[in-house]
Amino acid sequence: MALWGGRFSGDPAEDMVRFSQSIDVDLRMAREDIAGSRAHARMLAEAGLLDGEELARILQGLDEVEEEILSGAWVPGAELEDIHMAVEHRLIERIGPVAGKLHTARSRNDQVATDLRLWLRARLRELAGDLEGLVEVLLDRVDADGRTLMPGYTHLQRGQPIWLGHHLLAHAWALTRDLERIDGALDRVDRSPLGACAMAGTPHPIDRERTAELLGFRGLIENAMDAVSARDHVLETASACAILCATLSRMAAELVLWSSREFDFVRLGEGYATGSSIMPQKRNPDAAELVRGRAARIQGVLAGLLALVKGLPMSYNRDLQEEREPLMDAVEGTAACVRILQGVWRTLTVRKDRFERELQGDFALATELADHLAARGVPFREAHHAAGRAVRLCEERGTDLAGLTLDDLRAIHPAFDASALAALDPVRAAERRVSRGGTAWSEVRRQVGLLRELLRHRRTPAREE
Amino acid sequence: MALWGGRFSGDPAEDMVRFSQSIDVDLRMAREDIAGSRAHARMLAEAGLLDGEELARILQGLDEVEEEILSGAWVPGAELEDIHMAVEHRLIERIGPVAGKLHTARSRNDQVATDLRLWLRARLRELAGDLEGLVEVLLDRVDADGRTLMPGYTHLQRGQPIWLGHHLLAHAWALTRDLERIDGALDRVDRSPLGACAMAGTPHPIDRERTAELLGFRGLIENAMDAVSARDHVLETASACAILCATLSRMAAELVLWSSREFDFVRLGEGYATGSSIMPQKRNPDAAELVRGRAARIQGVLAGLLALVKGLPMSYNRDLQEEREPLMDAVEGTAACVRILQGVWRTLTVRKDRFERELQGDFALATELADHLAARGVPFREAHHAAGRAVRLCEERGTDLAGLTLDDLRAIHPAFDASALAALDPVRAAERRVSRGGTAWSEVRRQVGLLRELLRHRRTPAREE
Amino acid sequence: MALWGGRFSGDPAEDMVRFSQSIDVDLRMAREDIAGSRAHARMLAEAGLLDGEELARILQGLDEVEEEILSGAWVPGAELEDIHMAVEHRLIERIGPVAGKLHTARSRNDQVATDLRLWLRARLRELAGDLEGLVEVLLDRVDADGRTLMPGYTHLQRGQPIWLGHHLLAHAWALTRDLERIDGALDRVDRSPLGACAMAGTPHPIDRERTAELLGFRGLIENAMDAVSARDHVLETASACAILCATLSRMAAELVLWSSREFDFVRLGEGYATGSSIMPQKRNPDAAELVRGRAARIQGVLAGLLALVKGLPMSYNRDLQEEREPLMDAVEGTAACVRILQGVWRTLTVRKDRFERELQGDFALATELADHLAARGVPFREAHHAAGRAVRLCEERGTDLAGLTLDDLRAIHPAFDASALAALDPVRAAERRVSRGGTAWSEVRRQVGLLRELLRHRRTPAREE
Amino acid sequence: MALWGGRFSGDPAEDMVRFSQSIDVDLRMAREDIAGSRAHARMLAEAGLLDGEELARILQGLDEVEEEILSGAWVPGAELEDIHMAVEHRLIERIGPVAGKLHTARSRNDQVATDLRLWLRARLRELAGDLEGLVEVLLDRVDADGRTLMPGYTHLQRGQPIWLGHHLLAHAWALTRDLERIDGALDRVDRSPLGACAMAGTPHPIDRERTAELLGFRGLIENAMDAVSARDHVLETASACAILCATLSRMAAELVLWSSREFDFVRLGEGYATGSSIMPQKRNPDAAELVRGRAARIQGVLAGLLALVKGLPMSYNRDLQEEREPLMDAVEGTAACVRILQGVWRTLTVRKDRFERELQGDFALATELADHLAARGVPFREAHHAAGRAVRLCEERGTDLAGLTLDDLRAIHPAFDASALAALDPVRAAERRVSRGGTAWSEVRRQVGLLRELLRHRRTPAREE
Repeated sequence: MALWGGRFSGDPAEDMVRFSQSIDVDLRMAREDIAGSRAHARMLAEAGLLDGEELARILQGLDEVEEEILSGAWVPGAELEDIHMAVEHRLIERIGPVAGKLHTARSRNDQVATDLRLWLRARLRELAGDLEGLVEVLLDRVDADGRTLMPGYTHLQRGQPIWLGHHLLAHAWALTRDLERIDGALDRVDRSPLGACAMAGTPHPIDRERTAELLGFRGLIENAMDAVSARDHVLETASACAILCATLSRMAAELVLWSSREFDFVRLGEGYATGSSIMPQKRNPDAAELVRGRAARIQGVLAGLLALVKGLPMSYNRDLQEEREPLMDAVEGTAACVRILQGVWRTLTVRKDRFERELQGDFALATELADHLAARGVPFREAHHAAGRAVRLCEERGTDLAGLTLDDLRAIHPAFDASALAALDPVRAAERRVSRGGTAWSEVRRQVGLLRELLRHRRTPAREE
Repeated sequence: MALWGGRFSGDPAEDMVRFSQSIDVDLRMAREDIAGSRAHARMLAEAGLLDGEELARILQGLDEVEEEILSGAWVPGAELEDIHMAVEHRLIERIGPVAGKLHTARSRNDQVATDLRLWLRARLRELAGDLEGLVEVLLDRVDADGRTLMPGYTHLQRGQPIWLGHHLLAHAWALTRDLERIDGALDRVDRSPLGACAMAGTPHPIDRERTAELLGFRGLIENAMDAVSARDHVLETASACAILCATLSRMAAELVLWSSREFDFVRLGEGYATGSSIMPQKRNPDAAELVRGRAARIQGVLAGLLALVKGLPMSYNRDLQEEREPLMDAVEGTAACVRILQGVWRTLTVRKDRFERELQGDFALATELADHLAARGVPFREAHHAAGRAVRLCEERGTDLAGLTLDDLRAIHPAFDASALAALDPVRAAERRVSRGGTAWSEVRRQVGLLRELLRHRRTPAREE
Repeated sequence: MALWGGRFSGDPAEDMVRFSQSIDVDLRMAREDIAGSRAHARMLAEAGLLDGEELARILQGLDEVEEEILSGAWVPGAELEDIHMAVEHRLIERIGPVAGKLHTARSRNDQVATDLRLWLRARLRELAGDLEGLVEVLLDRVDADGRTLMPGYTHLQRGQPIWLGHHLLAHAWALTRDLERIDGALDRVDRSPLGACAMAGTPHPIDRERTAELLGFRGLIENAMDAVSARDHVLETASACAILCATLSRMAAELVLWSSREFDFVRLGEGYATGSSIMPQKRNPDAAELVRGRAARIQGVLAGLLALVKGLPMSYNRDLQEEREPLMDAVEGTAACVRILQGVWRTLTVRKDRFERELQGDFALATELADHLAARGVPFREAHHAAGRAVRLCEERGTDLAGLTLDDLRAIHPAFDASALAALDPVRAAERRVSRGGTAWSEVRRQVGLLRELLRHRRTPAREE
Repeated sequence: MALWGGRFSGDPAEDMVRFSQSIDVDLRMAREDIAGSRAHARMLAEAGLLDGEELARILQGLDEVEEEILSGAWVPGAELEDIHMAVEHRLIERIGPVAGKLHTARSRNDQVATDLRLWLRARLRELAGDLEGLVEVLLDRVDADGRTLMPGYTHLQRGQPIWLGHHLLAHAWALTRDLERIDGALDRVDRSPLGACAMAGTPHPIDRERTAELLGFRGLIENAMDAVSARDHVLETASACAILCATLSRMAAELVLWSSREFDFVRLGEGYATGSSIMPQKRNPDAAELVRGRAARIQGVLAGLLALVKGLPMSYNRDLQEEREPLMDAVEGTAACVRILQGVWRTLTVRKDRFERELQGDFALATELADHLAARGVPFREAHHAAGRAVRLCEERGTDLAGLTLDDLRAIHPAFDASALAALDPVRAAERRVSRGGTAWSEVRRQVGLLRELLRHRRTPAREE
């Protein structure tokens, strides 16, 4: 009964049918499969391999089958193996043997490659849009709360006072590079393998440029064996997702941290937090935790796909079927994480006064003392050492830097003068750092402008499509 | 409306409901969740925390809910978050507020830990049984076809003539170690976390040994925080699966190889092979390829789970929810691979005559020449060198070793005598290797006996459970 | 010149020599290689394949070569390929052609398998010892600081007050399971492959049990092909390390968190913290961060090894050489992490008063209110809801639970009585949780006893070896 | 003694010194570290922060330190922690306290970020060059041996006859996409973080554009926190390597396969093959096996790096030090694999006559029969079925397709005519596939032209740098 049945006398084993079918996963790319068939049929007709009536019947039949599948009116069984078989089978049922002509100059190898590329293209474009949205939400947040004082951390230790806007922009910039990687993946994905047939091309007078054009591809995968064997675009897509997830997981980890009672810097909106079944007071940052966890899963998918492709000789091998489900889950999961973080950032509350007072006299200002000395000609290493001794003195006394007098400082280094005490102001400390990309508010504003401009440029062509 | 709603005034965001729900995955452990609730209820009653009527109503209610869920008569919606909430919610609908008492001295943290352990225990036991079955199938195959001559390979180069049985036993032995690892994982999995509550235990006079006993656990996870935080048993289970998959993938890769026209050593049964939509002659070893591909996916799952757990502070974090689906898929997928390979081995055909003649005079006999000299007192390195020169001479002449005369050999090394030519017989070469575990048929038989004995011992206790 | 040169006329390419040599990595197992040769020589003599004088010269020569290599007096060059070739080459230089007899009934395939197993056995035993040491350090810390009050966290949110000892024991118990996994790996590692030769055994009358005995192996890998092909023990070892690293990384992440100014719960000893080149006040928890980072690397090693073994047909393939360096680095790196954490825990300071006052009235006590009601017969769900409303009331007023009056509570639920206020005491909250494995101090002490007993049992046999 | 010692009273623990030092790895980027210092010094002088004499002394001192380090005349000890400390320490020793001024407006955070980017840029450019070289070697091989007939495989089953050139071009095209990915990674890598200081910028009037220009960067990482925290370029570089390795591993796996006695299609040059210590006849394709193995290791590195970065909050965390060694090994290892494969392809021999005769009548021609019918108006599915029946008939008779008569064919399907027998010619079968990218020789030649053109374009700008 199978479409390849001529040589076979028996039926597949029942467990094998279940194990080998991909129809449930494939259904996610039913639309793409039928789009590919439509383009192929049109090209065949233009090439004289179908006559006008045949084409009309096939196109009509494909419309009906698409409608049936997308509406759920017809659900293909596992015995139909995959989406290509299913569509062809159903088409035969509806329009008769003429449907068989559609498989001229085509193989499941180039079909599945085409379907997956179309699917990935659509998803990657959506993902890029979602990501642009997240950058915008972050920029809106900088506008709203960016001038909130906080400690900048290294090693999770307080380093220097900064504006929250400075911190959020670090994430926003990172996301723009993720956008570039998605663009790069798209460039490799968006090439047509259709017409490669099994892996050697075909004697039929097909026009691969034409199907590529009909399907909106940017170009062709030239070599027919490459067209059905290549999975580097799959690996690159998974990589782009995994790297983006690394970026998202860092943001998520901070949200978890900042939601803790100890940091107490943000409060997630109720829509993105949950409670406990036993501890009534809990307001858990679940959305952020789930993003962090999903990121790990998606990284695992990449590891699995790399192992899957490793060492496979040319050309198509059935192993490659196993790439589809994890890949699709990874791409859709990444987009879900991006959208959830949009929601989280849109609805959270920043505790603007959390750190402001606490940073007065905080050790995070010790660099100011070192800079004070350095500005007075003390070599930086010596200045740094003196500031370190000031911190140690405070610790011995159980105070913070605000507890030091000018005499204390002079006893540590004679180059300290009265303005040293004035330097111990966190706002001033943040605003002094006016070097390009520094935390000073002017630099934060400048970068917001750059990023909004960048988004504007990206969004415009996207709208045109 | 959420069970933890007292502190919350708003509803979760719609995208968050979809993103955070685990109900569809959790349904796979509905049976285990309800078993846990039953044991907990019984223990609560024995501890005086429920009276007899309350217990009876709860047990009755649980039976009904289980029936409803397993039959599909009631399908919990995503707004119920997880299986624990769903069961509790439904129980309240059926038996009223008394259902609320079931949550005394319990938290979702210890519930999910319990459910997952019960689920894993059942699956690992099944997996062990499937694996024993695969070893048996291999042993049956040794009985049937073991005395087929083939080249033993290293570097995919022919090394020395061996019996197929020798080769198959290498796989069988490897699988017994996979069995040991599954046993080890089971030992860590089969411990009860129930009663740990959120992570600190409870003031209620519960009896954790009792619930452990009712659920058939081997023992307890003592520490309550450990009980809800620990995921090392999850990682160990995934590792055991990933390592087993490595073993299976090696077997699968050989089946692919041996099915090629060039090796042409086995032919998969039609039930486990497929054809091509474009190339009518194809008989593709799909079952083996799919196993090899699935193995890679499962290895990726392990990588993802390790990354997920890495760096998570105590105790429960919502990230852990993301472990469930890939873990379950990995465990079930591993078992599916094992069963598919059972079917493959049961139904394939070995081409018994494939290599027999070809090995006459094959370079794979060169070691015989070296051994011949070594047996005559030539230091092994010198003997090895002489045999190498014999091969080179053949290559220059375009013959194989059968083309050499005694004079040829003597010109290479004077210690060769007439019996050297007789040594160039592949069956004799295989049969000479009588060292323990060598390829000689007597050793093959001895090992079959050992393995059948080992299986007999394992199977007996399993039957008792 | 190569030992396998008879068939070859040319030399290896220069880049290939560099790419393919493993001598620098192999030198780490020089001791094991020579131990294997010694045992093999003794067995050969007992089997009559070497006479007494030959044996004496070989043993003497091996001693000298070992001395030369371990002292660095002789450093093998890359052209010697691997440790087996290097030792043999040097032995020939020292004792002449008789050295060639040592290679009778042996191949590099079984040699490298033997060497690596001996090396792994030694390292895993050391690792187990290091791990026992870490558990002891944790128990000492429980003795010293265990009765420090802290919040127990879930989702990094304060859940319920616990003793630090309860928390530390969760880690200690987890480490005991890592010990079990190392034991399991050792059981698979500690089997002798020696005598398998290339993969088919040998016609020589060798005694594999004897070499296994001489090398202290627990048993044999029976099948010769399995003996040289098996890498599951390598994967299992890497898994045991990766899972242990997951445990360690969680501990490390907590140390980073607790060292932050916001948590401020521990201070790492100066020996395990570092400063900043620009911020004088910094005291960074570098040791913990490095452990967390190393854990990720080691997890990556496992992913790589799984991918490496995946799909390799029997038996030895040169790919397997690439497993050695990452494996060795992973095992040694894991042990280094364990020892660093010993030092960290031994030298850190716990701020005992950090949370005690802060937990008075903290929302972490909300469960006490729910329990109070539940103890008065209110169904748990209703009680939980009431406690949640109490928290919300506090938040609206900007107070904590200590700010509530009995009237406030009664307005929320009539079943509250006067003792509800007394329940809001964190020490009492911790001490009430006396269920098995709960946080009550008596349970902490009991578990310390169990763990010390467990260590005592483990240590004794180890000392005997 | 440490440069950050002001606050510290004690020394680091000895094991911590060993565990935390990165000096041995860092030495690989000594040149880059000093280049960064030179640019920083020049900029400081232009900004008036150093006077002319100070600059001259610092530049002179840096030259001397570079010379000392690169020549090995001075080897920094582990107590100097990292390359930045080491260079600064040595500079102070040579030119005195003025060296301390070099650390003005700089931190180890932006230094290490700069060093690593410079190092990666150099290596990625080299890698791109090596890769172009490999494509050229493949094209040369197509010129030399491309017109060798072979079966095109899917599922490792013979599919259709193709030219070797068609097959080799599939690899060559894939490598061009790897080149694009390396270009993409370079675009992200080649941005200057210098001047970001700890993570907040600096009050000093530095000129980040100027140091970027001096170091030849394409642009800046704008945001100072992003500059020191970002590791996405590291992940992207590792991804590009891992994906390239997947491509290489597929080629390597084929070389192993084709070197087997069963395929016997290529023979590796002696420079890239090795022998056996026990089996004199062996000629193992070690180079290809090692590449396949190394590919897996490098894939593991990526998994480890993703896990390492996952969940790290901003900004610099010491975990990131652990990324350096595996990353460097991965990048250099990838380049080594590329160069080894250049050597392999340059020196191997293709057995041109291997498949030519064997493909006469081979089932790989079955598609020709189907096409024959399809060209006569038989719907493709029906044609395909008929061809399958022809194969089955042959199998039943134990012949190949050459054994069929026209009557046989007509009995299967009446539309077969006399020219069907003529279609059963492998050369004709290959040459018929003239569709774009098909296996016909004209298409092979066209693609060689395209690829040579592409290389010419790439090489030109590279030469200008």
